[in-house]
Amino acid sequence: MAAPEPRPDLRDAPFLLACRGEPAPHTPVWFMRQAGRSLPEYRAIKGTTNILGAIAQPELAAEITLQPVRRYGVDAAILYSDIVVPVHAIGFGVEIVAGVGPVVERPFRTAADLDRLRPLDPEADVPYVLDTVRLLTKELDVPLIGFAGAPFTVASYLVEGKPSRDYAETRRLMWRDPALFAALLDRLADLAVASLRSQVDAGASAVQLFDSWAGALDPDDYRAHVLPSVQKVLTHTADLGVPSIASGVGASGVLDQWAAAGADVVSVDSSITLDEARRRVGAGVAVQGNLDPWAVALAPWEVVESKARAVLRSNDGRPGHVFNLGHGVRPETNPDVLQRIVELVHNS
Amino acid sequence: MAAPEPRPDLRDAPFLLACRGEPAPHTPVWFMRQAGRSLPEYRAIKGTTNILGAIAQPELAAEITLQPVRRYGVDAAILYSDIVVPVHAIGFGVEIVAGVGPVVERPFRTAADLDRLRPLDPEADVPYVLDTVRLLTKELDVPLIGFAGAPFTVASYLVEGKPSRDYAETRRLMWRDPALFAALLDRLADLAVASLRSQVDAGASAVQLFDSWAGALDPDDYRAHVLPSVQKVLTHTADLGVPSIASGVGASGVLDQWAAAGADVVSVDSSITLDEARRRVGAGVAVQGNLDPWAVALAPWEVVESKARAVLRSNDGRPGHVFNLGHGVRPETNPDVLQRIVELVHNS
Repeated sequence: MAAPEPRPDLRDAPFLLACRGEPAPHTPVWFMRQAGRSLPEYRAIKGTTNILGAIAQPELAAEITLQPVRRYGVDAAILYSDIVVPVHAIGFGVEIVAGVGPVVERPFRTAADLDRLRPLDPEADVPYVLDTVRLLTKELDVPLIGFAGAPFTVASYLVEGKPSRDYAETRRLMWRDPALFAALLDRLADLAVASLRSQVDAGASAVQLFDSWAGALDPDDYRAHVLPSVQKVLTHTADLGVPSIASGVGASGVLDQWAAAGADVVSVDSSITLDEARRRVGAGVAVQGNLDPWAVALAPWEVVESKARAVLRSNDGRPGHVFNLGHGVRPETNPDVLQRIVELVHNS
Repeated sequence: MAAPEPRPDLRDAPFLLACRGEPAPHTPVWFMRQAGRSLPEYRAIKGTTNILGAIAQPELAAEITLQPVRRYGVDAAILYSDIVVPVHAIGFGVEIVAGVGPVVERPFRTAADLDRLRPLDPEADVPYVLDTVRLLTKELDVPLIGFAGAPFTVASYLVEGKPSRDYAETRRLMWRDPALFAALLDRLADLAVASLRSQVDAGASAVQLFDSWAGALDPDDYRAHVLPSVQKVLTHTADLGVPSIASGVGASGVLDQWAAAGADVVSVDSSITLDEARRRVGAGVAVQGNLDPWAVALAPWEVVESKARAVLRSNDGRPGHVFNLGHGVRPETNPDVLQRIVELVHNS
């Protein structure tokens, strides 16, 4: 039986209409990483707490989530979170080190390490996440997007032990012990499913799966070694009745796989046009994107404006477009530019 | 009037047949970065000379170029060179620092810096390059590919002053002073043209333009700000009668632009299949690629073999395929694996 619909009053919010491929009164817009380092009000309240510490404080995490919604009038909020929250919560030994990123005390190496990945019990392990979602659901008048790291990207941190540009250990494991790699991703899929289900039960109106490093693999390897875990997450959250968004960087080669696996929306980076992305995923799948975040950070407004209009033109008025950047907001971005983009998109 | 054809005896070498889209007796194969750090015989002769020092010694540079041809029996040699050779030779102040990469003493910042980019006189400025090409042309029984950095990628080094992952200064210049950016790329196109023409005059049978960072820009920016310089290089070398190959990493979004600008061959990275690449560039353009170099470095032979066969299957026997990796050979690659790939491709 399907869960009761979260926030029925938001059912026809422009963001959700677009996610479902239905015509919306205006093109909805939000920005990946709209919360956080680019906002002075974030820097003012964040203090010296690290990100996992901030996530563990519901009032603070909710406030950080709300800041960009208040400032920009974007059409969706995204839960302030991090992809390592579940593995951190179950005690895998992941910490986020300032200036470095996620660091794992004992990286994943052998089948014995699977036992360190017990199932997530959201109410017991991450009550603060659900409290944050509940606070936000009360407060928001736009949909809240739930947040989960995709199994491959989370696995890359567990296997490498620290942020990597090469993912050599992860690749080695994938090719040299594909069964163990699959078992690892399957466990991580279970964590993502439990986390996302609990976020939706608490009131989230959509979910986004962040497979940030999807672009590290060729399409055949992604299909063979990674897609089953993505499919598991999407299949086991499909009954929730909320749209699912799949995203990654450099992942334009696997958009079709995400669509085939059941993603309602594919997030498109700036390496291809939305028109090309639509050609690859076919009808019936919405697209999110794809203004170059570097232009937003560095180019004069006239250039940003022209590029934002080009994104809209590439979509050509088709229903099922959520305007966004190709990937996250750069920390050096001037918030006023994002504000102007929201106005431009809403008035186009 | 067209220049006399280089090495007419190699006119029907499998590599050149494939570059021209004609049927070849076997699929030709070579590997980007086939020379260099992955080979013990390279490490044995290189000594402590840095790369620019080695390039300046024709006997050494020719030997380094020949090593992989002898070892693997690949279908093409590629001149051992570096994309900064011309700008170094005209005195822009570029050095290659071990463990870092190209470093520029005074980065390119203003229009006054254009004067530091005088035309290249190959016989006077880089006589060693031409001597190397002449030595190789005498020695080789396969075609030699001439080498040039594409204007955008060379510009990124001159503007950043050192290797960068973000290219923030380059992007800033492009968006904030597009006229100066265009003037910079135009000068660098002239350098590439002069360098490639002289290499072909000395005996090179094909040319490859390395736009390594092409993937840093969205397709619209590449078209507006970069393509004119690529087009200039291709147009001003077209009369030489040798095939041109355009290559980059993460550049699958601009393959169609390279084809439209006149590249005879587009080099395809591992993010898309050859079949998809062919769909994008259309008939009449050959494809080069695209086995994942990470698999070659890290996967067991059975996996490499299966992936190499998948590349061949994706091309499906169509004429105009040069087998290669999606980008350069990783330094940790076992040469025996490359050897087996050559045998597999030749016998398929």
